[in-house]
Amino acid sequence: MDSSKAGSGPFGIGGIGTYLPAARQDNLEHAGRFALEEDFITSKIGFTATARRGEGEDTSDLCVKAYEDLVARTGTAAEDLDLIVVVTQNPDHHGLPHTSAVVHKKLGLPKTCFAFDLSLGCSGYVAGLAVVKGFLENTCGRRAMLFTADPYSKILDPDDKNTCLIFGDGAAATLIDRSGTWRIGQFDMGTDGSKCSALEVRDDGKLFMNGRSVFEFCVLNVPGSVAKVLEANALARENVDRFVFHPGSKYIVDVIASKIGIPKPPFDAAEYGNTVSSSIPMMLADLDPNTVRTVLVSGFGVGLGWATTVLRSA
Amino acid sequence: MDSSKAGSGPFGIGGIGTYLPAARQDNLEHAGRFALEEDFITSKIGFTATARRGEGEDTSDLCVKAYEDLVARTGTAAEDLDLIVVVTQNPDHHGLPHTSAVVHKKLGLPKTCFAFDLSLGCSGYVAGLAVVKGFLENTCGRRAMLFTADPYSKILDPDDKNTCLIFGDGAAATLIDRSGTWRIGQFDMGTDGSKCSALEVRDDGKLFMNGRSVFEFCVLNVPGSVAKVLEANALARENVDRFVFHPGSKYIVDVIASKIGIPKPPFDAAEYGNTVSSSIPMMLADLDPNTVRTVLVSGFGVGLGWATTVLRSA
Repeated sequence: MDSSKAGSGPFGIGGIGTYLPAARQDNLEHAGRFALEEDFITSKIGFTATARRGEGEDTSDLCVKAYEDLVARTGTAAEDLDLIVVVTQNPDHHGLPHTSAVVHKKLGLPKTCFAFDLSLGCSGYVAGLAVVKGFLENTCGRRAMLFTADPYSKILDPDDKNTCLIFGDGAAATLIDRSGTWRIGQFDMGTDGSKCSALEVRDDGKLFMNGRSVFEFCVLNVPGSVAKVLEANALARENVDRFVFHPGSKYIVDVIASKIGIPKPPFDAAEYGNTVSSSIPMMLADLDPNTVRTVLVSGFGVGLGWATTVLRSA
Repeated sequence: MDSSKAGSGPFGIGGIGTYLPAARQDNLEHAGRFALEEDFITSKIGFTATARRGEGEDTSDLCVKAYEDLVARTGTAAEDLDLIVVVTQNPDHHGLPHTSAVVHKKLGLPKTCFAFDLSLGCSGYVAGLAVVKGFLENTCGRRAMLFTADPYSKILDPDDKNTCLIFGDGAAATLIDRSGTWRIGQFDMGTDGSKCSALEVRDDGKLFMNGRSVFEFCVLNVPGSVAKVLEANALARENVDRFVFHPGSKYIVDVIASKIGIPKPPFDAAEYGNTVSSSIPMMLADLDPNTVRTVLVSGFGVGLGWATTVLRSA
């Protein structure tokens, strides 16, 4: 490899590619069917549309599309990868082999590139940053790709208003190496397994969500996690240029922002839905690290768990 | 927590608990049905019996049993865990939530303990050591539990002689902290995604294995990986007290040993089967780190992928 490409600083984010399928479910059309007011859709849930993968488009295909977007954005093929990780709970092929092995095949990667999947939900992107960074440091690796792709349309019941108006399909590919513009800071993570049934696939193969329980978990734990991460990274709230919270719903994000004492953040996911572990990289992809220099990112949901860190421009 | 418990050295293995269900499939009884000679079972496949989980015993239950064995062996509850990881491709509940969240609930762990699953097959234990060590170092964590539990009986076709005489159910729980007796060395890992269909669950939900392809992959790649790991850890072959190869079959292990130029290793798994990612910790659990001071461990299979490292007594 060309070692100059890999840089010599600490590990950071070298680029983000994303993919949203073109098809959309129009949630406002469905509002009547569920006897919901339009205002409930736009102000509480927050998603006027949710992205839906195409026929035959599997999880690994979403990853490949996100990779192609990364290549188009950065102008270079992401070569010399020592590791690819796919964060998903809706893998290809019943999950065996892992989807990252299928992506490895589809991208024609060399044997020196290891591959595994990480099973996490909405905290998966931030936790994935910790896993990838730690893995590279422990294996003398130089460069990795963190894919997130969790097409919930596989498990959604179209008649369940608690889930089908919320989740969208999408994927992201995040390059991690030592030339990264946003460096990865200190973390805070936690899990409350006693509440793990609040978001689960049941015997019928469909997703069940106890929205109230998930909401209470987030509002109880995320503000404290943000405070811990600010302290661990020696930052005050005012030093953060952007807070990027996982868009579980508009209401959750607004309440968390209010508890922390910051203005309501923009709700970028309004027109494509909650894309689970891809939601945070979707929001990061178009930010300019030269102007948005310090970003706090926090994901929370399935498990129930949370993961928070800070990204800072070099 | 009591920080003295956590130690201050590099991360290593602080203890291993295992669990094998009591029920066994007698492979010699099945030999006739498949028109196989007894010698083929004992000398080539190598498994005279394969362990089978009990009715209603799910993946998380296997993990809890392995945890209980660890507690019984070490005489102390493994408290102060910052992380639990479950390596599996046959999770509870369709994989959502992750099985580690269910284990978190069943063990009543505190919210400060994060949890995620790692989707890997037979290379999962060794790769899991790298993931856990890296994660702890990156998150200022002190102590983690690496569970392996992949009950293939969920996906075996009882009429497929290529798989049903090989895989057994089991689990292991490996404590990783800075007081560990075996310290974790340098790694070598790789994946050949182009061969990922050689071990896969097909549309009928059953495992397919192209044994020839898996065998060729292992024989082609594992000896080179062993050489790399010896070099990376500044060891000669003679410095290794025990080579622990994943028991894919007796024949694979014997051929690899022959290629490396070492005697045929003992085949501990003969009476319970290939327990996938639990196979290596099953073989490590009863070794005494005071006499078996340097162990080379190598796992290989699903992906297709491999992972190799060295464990050394402090």
